[in-house]
Amino acid sequence: MLKGHQSWIFRRRPVITGTAAVVGPFEGRGPLGDDFDIVHGDSMVGQDSWEKAEQALLEEAANVAIQHAGITKEQVHFHVGGDLMNQITSTSYTARTMTIPYIGVFGACSTSMESLALGAQLVDSGAAKHVLVGTCSHNSSAEKQFRYPTEYGSQKPPTAQYTVTGAGAAVVSDEGDGPVVVAATIGRVVDMGIKNPFNMGAAMAPAAVDTITAHFRDLQVGPDHYDLIVTGDLAKVGYEIASDLFEKHDIPMHKTRYRDCGMLIYDYEKQMVQSGGSGCGCSAVVTYGHLIKKLRKREFRRILVVATGALLSPIAMQQGETIPGIAHAVAIEAPESI
Amino acid sequence: MLKGHQSWIFRRRPVITGTAAVVGPFEGRGPLGDDFDIVHGDSMVGQDSWEKAEQALLEEAANVAIQHAGITKEQVHFHVGGDLMNQITSTSYTARTMTIPYIGVFGACSTSMESLALGAQLVDSGAAKHVLVGTCSHNSSAEKQFRYPTEYGSQKPPTAQYTVTGAGAAVVSDEGDGPVVVAATIGRVVDMGIKNPFNMGAAMAPAAVDTITAHFRDLQVGPDHYDLIVTGDLAKVGYEIASDLFEKHDIPMHKTRYRDCGMLIYDYEKQMVQSGGSGCGCSAVVTYGHLIKKLRKREFRRILVVATGALLSPIAMQQGETIPGIAHAVAIEAPESI
Repeated sequence: MLKGHQSWIFRRRPVITGTAAVVGPFEGRGPLGDDFDIVHGDSMVGQDSWEKAEQALLEEAANVAIQHAGITKEQVHFHVGGDLMNQITSTSYTARTMTIPYIGVFGACSTSMESLALGAQLVDSGAAKHVLVGTCSHNSSAEKQFRYPTEYGSQKPPTAQYTVTGAGAAVVSDEGDGPVVVAATIGRVVDMGIKNPFNMGAAMAPAAVDTITAHFRDLQVGPDHYDLIVTGDLAKVGYEIASDLFEKHDIPMHKTRYRDCGMLIYDYEKQMVQSGGSGCGCSAVVTYGHLIKKLRKREFRRILVVATGALLSPIAMQQGETIPGIAHAVAIEAPESI
Repeated sequence: MLKGHQSWIFRRRPVITGTAAVVGPFEGRGPLGDDFDIVHGDSMVGQDSWEKAEQALLEEAANVAIQHAGITKEQVHFHVGGDLMNQITSTSYTARTMTIPYIGVFGACSTSMESLALGAQLVDSGAAKHVLVGTCSHNSSAEKQFRYPTEYGSQKPPTAQYTVTGAGAAVVSDEGDGPVVVAATIGRVVDMGIKNPFNMGAAMAPAAVDTITAHFRDLQVGPDHYDLIVTGDLAKVGYEIASDLFEKHDIPMHKTRYRDCGMLIYDYEKQMVQSGGSGCGCSAVVTYGHLIKKLRKREFRRILVVATGALLSPIAMQQGETIPGIAHAVAIEAPESI
């Protein structure tokens, strides 16, 4: 139900009964490598195009998440998801093979939490018993579409981010064992006039701060309410901007408790990722691979995942438009004690 | 709440308190011209690109719908919408100017009813008091992206459809005066192997039949339950295929009570539109401009709008993929008697 102006609290406590994170070889070599369910040795995933490889990652993640939930795909009422590809084809073609009634969504890299928020809302309100949510991205399909094909080997500025090759999916259920989705905040579009698709962290940081501030206001909590607040893919540059904005607004975000998925997924010493990770898959695989495991083990009691999206399109950029940002936040708690 | 496997019934009876349909000059000259709120004389809508023109149509429709609902945009909790443009930019950039918390969705031309179904679900479950829903398309931006720029003047086969230049928006509220959203059915992706982007009616017709059949099964009603069942944009070719499929499945759809928005919007005698209209705007402007007015006047008691989407992308087509179809259905009733 509605709480404040733009948040929902989920009184029936929908449960994340199954999750899966499937990644490419580069992500497997990062510091979270051991947390992912499947690490592919080949970034083509046995397919003949980058787009088909991306879709294959998502299909795998969807099937593994359903399996982990201990149900069959016929028991899943709705599939909510989207991705970065034009017309969200990775997700729509996955929905074709899943044959689950399908609600396509798009929030760029905020799609991971947009779909989880909607899935939890549907379960909480009795509109579904089980909902499959998820998203994916692939470094080479994203670069080809938004910047330059990876085959060109073009140079990148230090503000650029490295799109994660990976897919994350989860099943949200009305009962069962697992971490609990307790609240969500839907973000507004915030645009601070950034025009550079090689600096998306700066474009998204103000949206993250806007949504987190709204979340605190709507739920009447502060940063201390959470053991961890994690943004989706601001990476180093965006993280610093967001940190400055929190300071400016007198919001005491402790650096040890505020992290960013785009900074967690790669090893800055050994992996050349400029500012850090990005892409729909970034917050999805960090959440469903790494963070959910920590909640299951009760290393965290309560976390807030704030997935950030840069709503740019190449054609809007060519027409001189700026990059609007958005962020959606979902609060997740450790499984209830038995 | 969930009804059957893939439908929702809305017991709190969310109300469509405001609507708007804004179209281009060609649609204004069609048989429904008088039903639209605004008819532009210039298909550029005073902008310097087709994409910006499309966005301008949606901004106008959103603002007029909110005005008709008798509220301010600050009172609207969520904006649910999407469109055909890559990364749904028309809607996301409109969301930037509206500054309403935003849930981007994508279902190609099924987006009109996908957004209305979700909006009604949010209101029905107490997750919002007012939700703005809507979508748009523009003939020239869609042709440029999916087929050939209109400036080329390329010839089209008789199965081709004419993308509607128009935007439709509505406000769904928890109370007020207006037609009532009573149920919705979320569709599955259905792909019958069509590869021709000039024959989308054939690609979408099986999805429409699948969703309508599921709706009847979930709600335990038959075609006679409705004064009108209208598909989104199958146009002539798809309408005939759907009619044949209904006959094959022994579903008695009477031709007088089963219509298609893509056939209603243009005058086949005077306007060169091949098979008929299509695009996200097609079902949106026919529903929010024409059909809602008939419900308000109680010329219809109860209708089922089944928006149909072809989930194709140019890159998937180039890689030899077929076109998946989807359809989402929403049941709307005339305002309750006072």
